[in-house]
Amino acid sequence: MQVQHLKLKAFVTQIFQAIGCDEKDALLASDVLVSADLRGIDSHGVARLAGYVRLFDNGRLNTKPEMKILHQTPSTLTLDGDKGLGLIVAPYAMELAKEKANNVGTGWVAVQNSNHFGIAGYHAMKALENNMIGWAMTHAAPLVTPTFSKEKLLGTNPIAIAIPAKEEEAFVADFASTAVAYGKLEILQRKGLNTPDGWVQDKYGDPANDAFAIKNGGALLPLGGDREHGSHKGYALGAMVDILSGVLSGANFGPWVPPFATAGFMSTVESVGNGTGHFLGAMRVDAFRPVENFLSDMDKWINRFKNADAVEGKKVIIPGEPERILEAERKLSGIPLLEPVIRDLEELGKRFTVQIDL
Amino acid sequence: MQVQHLKLKAFVTQIFQAIGCDEKDALLASDVLVSADLRGIDSHGVARLAGYVRLFDNGRLNTKPEMKILHQTPSTLTLDGDKGLGLIVAPYAMELAKEKANNVGTGWVAVQNSNHFGIAGYHAMKALENNMIGWAMTHAAPLVTPTFSKEKLLGTNPIAIAIPAKEEEAFVADFASTAVAYGKLEILQRKGLNTPDGWVQDKYGDPANDAFAIKNGGALLPLGGDREHGSHKGYALGAMVDILSGVLSGANFGPWVPPFATAGFMSTVESVGNGTGHFLGAMRVDAFRPVENFLSDMDKWINRFKNADAVEGKKVIIPGEPERILEAERKLSGIPLLEPVIRDLEELGKRFTVQIDL
Repeated sequence: MQVQHLKLKAFVTQIFQAIGCDEKDALLASDVLVSADLRGIDSHGVARLAGYVRLFDNGRLNTKPEMKILHQTPSTLTLDGDKGLGLIVAPYAMELAKEKANNVGTGWVAVQNSNHFGIAGYHAMKALENNMIGWAMTHAAPLVTPTFSKEKLLGTNPIAIAIPAKEEEAFVADFASTAVAYGKLEILQRKGLNTPDGWVQDKYGDPANDAFAIKNGGALLPLGGDREHGSHKGYALGAMVDILSGVLSGANFGPWVPPFATAGFMSTVESVGNGTGHFLGAMRVDAFRPVENFLSDMDKWINRFKNADAVEGKKVIIPGEPERILEAERKLSGIPLLEPVIRDLEELGKRFTVQIDL
Repeated sequence: MQVQHLKLKAFVTQIFQAIGCDEKDALLASDVLVSADLRGIDSHGVARLAGYVRLFDNGRLNTKPEMKILHQTPSTLTLDGDKGLGLIVAPYAMELAKEKANNVGTGWVAVQNSNHFGIAGYHAMKALENNMIGWAMTHAAPLVTPTFSKEKLLGTNPIAIAIPAKEEEAFVADFASTAVAYGKLEILQRKGLNTPDGWVQDKYGDPANDAFAIKNGGALLPLGGDREHGSHKGYALGAMVDILSGVLSGANFGPWVPPFATAGFMSTVESVGNGTGHFLGAMRVDAFRPVENFLSDMDKWINRFKNADAVEGKKVIIPGEPERILEAERKLSGIPLLEPVIRDLEELGKRFTVQIDL
């Protein structure tokens, strides 16, 4: 079923209002959420709306947060998200980072006491409109094993960077520090298929091809897969994201990062910090070089890579290109939603007496 | 042959002096170079000394650089390395980054017109003594293909981050954005062995196991190996390092990054910027949180990961741990040097009439 994105946004906005968000926050949260669906990262879009409501039901989400600045210097800031929706806490943190960058060249905001912030790319891209380079990272509940570990100690911990160009579209990298996203396992689960080598391990730490590996005590592998192919690098990258998002902000970290509210996965773990954390940054291009020169060189970079001699039947892709193409398509033709997601939305509509007109 | 590191340093210092470095610069450059040998990254240590001399012979190295600040804001700076040794340009850039961090919380320095800076980890670790988090990146001449490309457009582009702890040793990640370092191919070449899958491709862009792939028109693969295992993420990471080091600094970028002076690999390429670039950063921990709290939490993080339930016969390693252990060992027992490296050093000694006493 193809759903018009504006209708979807209107519905999501009303649900967020129904659990207590004011209109401005609800509009922003639905913009972040639906942008994931538009960009093809369906696992992080409206499929999660019911999860946010479960967070609220379990007292883990404050829909009227009073965010507090805990500490700051001219280029840094630590923000307490007051258990607010990550979907609105992170955009506020990015605004603060941009303000700092305006003043002193760069701005870096560590966030504690937040929760799931949607897609990292959305937040990084907010820097582009000001000719800034945007950074966004977040940690997440542990699904990933460090190299040689049987225990899951890291989340899929994504990192996003958005870099403006002139005539060309911006460079937007946004990727989990794992071999594959968890969403790819779910697709195989639905189809009853095994995973390729190098995606997951079993509970003994041995290579596995079980799409249900995580449920069976196994784990997602860091980017690189195994030691021979550089999994220690993916592990280091995920660890870096965890430390900047968690330890530097005063949030939880490592295996103590609280789980998102997927059903049956709400158990409280021991706490070593304050909620979930993020790390966001903005760097003014003209704090390094004249903007014009930088943007022209980015066009040159992008063109050279786009036009590289590619393998038979393929082309070299600029990070962010597929998502941008999909976004344009889906804005016209609608967002394809799966049956279970539609059912979830309908149930939310019923519960909060919000009319669903998809 | 095991060589005492202080003797090696003294020799390297004299060679750098012989090509025109003043004593202070020569001492620093030899410290950076030999630290690679101590830490087990032999490909980036004294094995490269002859290469730096070839750079000098070819007029690409200025041993009396007058570095210039091209632009700055309170938290950023762009530095012209004046064709100086990267081994002394990068430490100076790191000093400037730390000064900025002292003043406004963080400092970020983009460097142009430099050349090979040794191991990234050395520079990042310089932040540790001030309870700062250190960052260091550099691009390099193209050996790596973006996903789906037959052309080599990126270097092995490493990224390093150093994060202080309290009782525990610091977290020091330092890794190329490729599946493996080029040095690992060289080891297989010497042994006449093939590579495992997922390290290299041939000139058609097909998977290959040829340790000489690069000489035969092939390439190193980005971290992840192929698209199914996340090579687009390794590609994005390498691209990020290239853009920050090259485009943001005004250096060359992508396929235009000048080659290091390995023999027979000196051809001048078209230039789109000023020499080779780096990107360095320093973030004061207390710009985000009280230092004591952060350091204690880092100890907790490190202990939790160290003591994770590991696969049979293995343990979970903290980034930087193996290099630190090797450094302690090699400081006592000496640095093992290969025959060809010794011969190179002896030749340099003869040419510059520096006595080699290893």
